[in-house]
Amino acid sequence: MPDPVRVGVVGLGTVGSGVVRLLVDSADHITRHAGRPIVVERAVCRDVGRDRGLKLAPDRVSTDIRTISRDPSISVAALLVGGLEPARSMMIDLLENGKDVVTANKALLAEHGPELFELARKKGRSIAFEAAVAGGIPIVAAIGECLAANRIDSIRGILNGTSNFILSTMEEEGADYADVLALAQAKGYAEADPSMDVDGTDATQKLAILAHLAFGVWVPWAEIPRTGIEGVDSDLMASAAELGYRIRLVAIASRSDDRLAMRVAPALVKIGTPLAETRGAFNAVSIVGDAVGRMFFHGLGAGQMPTASAVVADIIDTVVGRAAITFRTTGVLDAESSAARVVGADMVQKHFLRVHVDDRPGVLSRITGILGEHGISIASVIQRDPAGVGGVPLVIMTHACGTNAVAKAVAHIDASDVVSGTTVCLGVLDD
Amino acid sequence: MPDPVRVGVVGLGTVGSGVVRLLVDSADHITRHAGRPIVVERAVCRDVGRDRGLKLAPDRVSTDIRTISRDPSISVAALLVGGLEPARSMMIDLLENGKDVVTANKALLAEHGPELFELARKKGRSIAFEAAVAGGIPIVAAIGECLAANRIDSIRGILNGTSNFILSTMEEEGADYADVLALAQAKGYAEADPSMDVDGTDATQKLAILAHLAFGVWVPWAEIPRTGIEGVDSDLMASAAELGYRIRLVAIASRSDDRLAMRVAPALVKIGTPLAETRGAFNAVSIVGDAVGRMFFHGLGAGQMPTASAVVADIIDTVVGRAAITFRTTGVLDAESSAARVVGADMVQKHFLRVHVDDRPGVLSRITGILGEHGISIASVIQRDPAGVGGVPLVIMTHACGTNAVAKAVAHIDASDVVSGTTVCLGVLDD
Repeated sequence: MPDPVRVGVVGLGTVGSGVVRLLVDSADHITRHAGRPIVVERAVCRDVGRDRGLKLAPDRVSTDIRTISRDPSISVAALLVGGLEPARSMMIDLLENGKDVVTANKALLAEHGPELFELARKKGRSIAFEAAVAGGIPIVAAIGECLAANRIDSIRGILNGTSNFILSTMEEEGADYADVLALAQAKGYAEADPSMDVDGTDATQKLAILAHLAFGVWVPWAEIPRTGIEGVDSDLMASAAELGYRIRLVAIASRSDDRLAMRVAPALVKIGTPLAETRGAFNAVSIVGDAVGRMFFHGLGAGQMPTASAVVADIIDTVVGRAAITFRTTGVLDAESSAARVVGADMVQKHFLRVHVDDRPGVLSRITGILGEHGISIASVIQRDPAGVGGVPLVIMTHACGTNAVAKAVAHIDASDVVSGTTVCLGVLDD
Repeated sequence: MPDPVRVGVVGLGTVGSGVVRLLVDSADHITRHAGRPIVVERAVCRDVGRDRGLKLAPDRVSTDIRTISRDPSISVAALLVGGLEPARSMMIDLLENGKDVVTANKALLAEHGPELFELARKKGRSIAFEAAVAGGIPIVAAIGECLAANRIDSIRGILNGTSNFILSTMEEEGADYADVLALAQAKGYAEADPSMDVDGTDATQKLAILAHLAFGVWVPWAEIPRTGIEGVDSDLMASAAELGYRIRLVAIASRSDDRLAMRVAPALVKIGTPLAETRGAFNAVSIVGDAVGRMFFHGLGAGQMPTASAVVADIIDTVVGRAAITFRTTGVLDAESSAARVVGADMVQKHFLRVHVDDRPGVLSRITGILGEHGISIASVIQRDPAGVGGVPLVIMTHACGTNAVAKAVAHIDASDVVSGTTVCLGVLDD
């Protein structure tokens, strides 16, 4: 049996503790897969005194990243702290000191990926990040390795478990957003400050990483159009259900020729399709490749052990040498990104509109007239009984049309004198 | 740019032609992923004269495997002929002559895997076989690499597209088995001789390969209990639907402690769960790992380009060096298989029984009495109106119990004097 590989674990929060636990508890199994033992040599965290119930001697734990980065016996470091700083400085310190790095920090990669990847390449090291997107679902390997023979046409993902838990619970229990958010917080599915989850930031950062792998482009995540789930109410869900749809927060990257459109927003997904059947805190990704057709992946996208599963798989990959190869071949994609490629948000799809109109003659013709002026044709209209104050909710399903054209039409409608309140406009996914 | 890698393609049937097409048409894209060009140097097939519309010069195609195995410029061979011979001899010839091999031949691996893997190891070569199971779904990589940190608890798969097409079409159209089989043959989803698909052989061979990856055991596929779909009729589907289930041909390998149970058989899968939503010629696999929880994969399990996608991904993996590492680490699993492990078929689950009983007093109590004697308790009973000849169909759903106990009880019931015809007994999967 070859010598053990010594690993440093940076961060002993939920994921870091799970990684230590998995490496210790499943040591025999992991040794067989890696061909040699993998031992946790040192860990770094903010509060060394806290008892996390880990089999880790006190003298192996410190607050100083240099106890890992400067330890020549450690070859692999798992960087499991969130946020941008000190995570970025720690990653640089680890790479500068010759460590291969495994990380679950999607914000760090979405924000500083190119810089960090460049440094790793310069230093001949690898960065593995399966755990950064969709937790235990091996979507990074699927896109970067398993579907390598395909040109990817589109990616659609439910990439944030918290917002999916909120939406699917609202739907199943007919409950309001605020009540379900409180429940999610009580159950530990949502942070005390859930804003990065519910406003789409987290899903958008993950989409930026997947788009890099699939399309070879680095799109700054903040440039990707993004709408959170705060505006989704139970009336909207009821209208969607009436038409045969559920509402999910969907991250989309879709290519046609050299044009890549990206967006994170609540969307109507047809009941019976895999994304619509993704419930609770689960994640799901649907990918279309030119050879393989449509693939679908579903699993736990967050949580201690699912994420630790992905981190430890990356550690094994690093130990056996696969990660170095993958990191190098993924890097090759950067050449592809230099090909002319326009990144925009316009996607051709069906749209769902909810307009609150005044209850008087001629209003429907006025609204449909505005849509017609923008070249948008209507598939169906549902006008419910007057709801009292706030006008009559008018639900319109369009035929396929560009999101930009719809956005202009909606602005025109909302500026007219026959509506009250703001029109809701969501994309519709039928497959 | 490094020199091209020269590949030999053995077999120019549906999959082989797809592989040549993909390597030629997506050459730029594949070159970027492999870091160097991959060219089809030679192909071998039975009928060299046939025009397959491939960009392959006539002098590059021969009927003789030695034009590939003895060509020192060729380092990788894709073995894309089906069946056992001459596939086995060809694989041996290729390995003996120092070629790394990529294959889609599940029957060959299920039958001769240990012998061929041993030879490859001895020769320092690799065998990659992502395409052998579930076509484009990267399930081999998922189990062997991405979930390496997990002890796998269970695998459930819809691994045969033909039988799933037949079952889901029977269900959707209320049609009979024979009519749908004829339709499937007309559409090209089923072979002229579909017996290996509908009798469960194909799914069982794939399950044997997955079990090797997940549990480190080589179970001879013919020893795995196997029931085909020929006995599924539309009445059975209606009864299942009434209880909230669909019928699918499910391949299961399930571990508890050191006991591994395996089976391929039609089963009731709860409507709304991913396996139940797998329709048409699609494949699906659900895996439970101790860390990652339940993962689900869905995609095209057969067909020219989905299978070619997996073959070419394996060729890329071989070219960049990942396949060699993976083959070595997968080999490590053989050590695990030496651990004491009983392989049986007994699984604890709910069961669905359809018994044709005589329409007279005391019969229900007799049947439930027999079940009780075997320790099987009943969750629900549906007794329909008398159907005329053949007695009254009695549908029973049991609580969780062992398949062996149920089989004994069913034999006891069928030997009693209150039934006519043979009782149907299917496992029930609720999650």
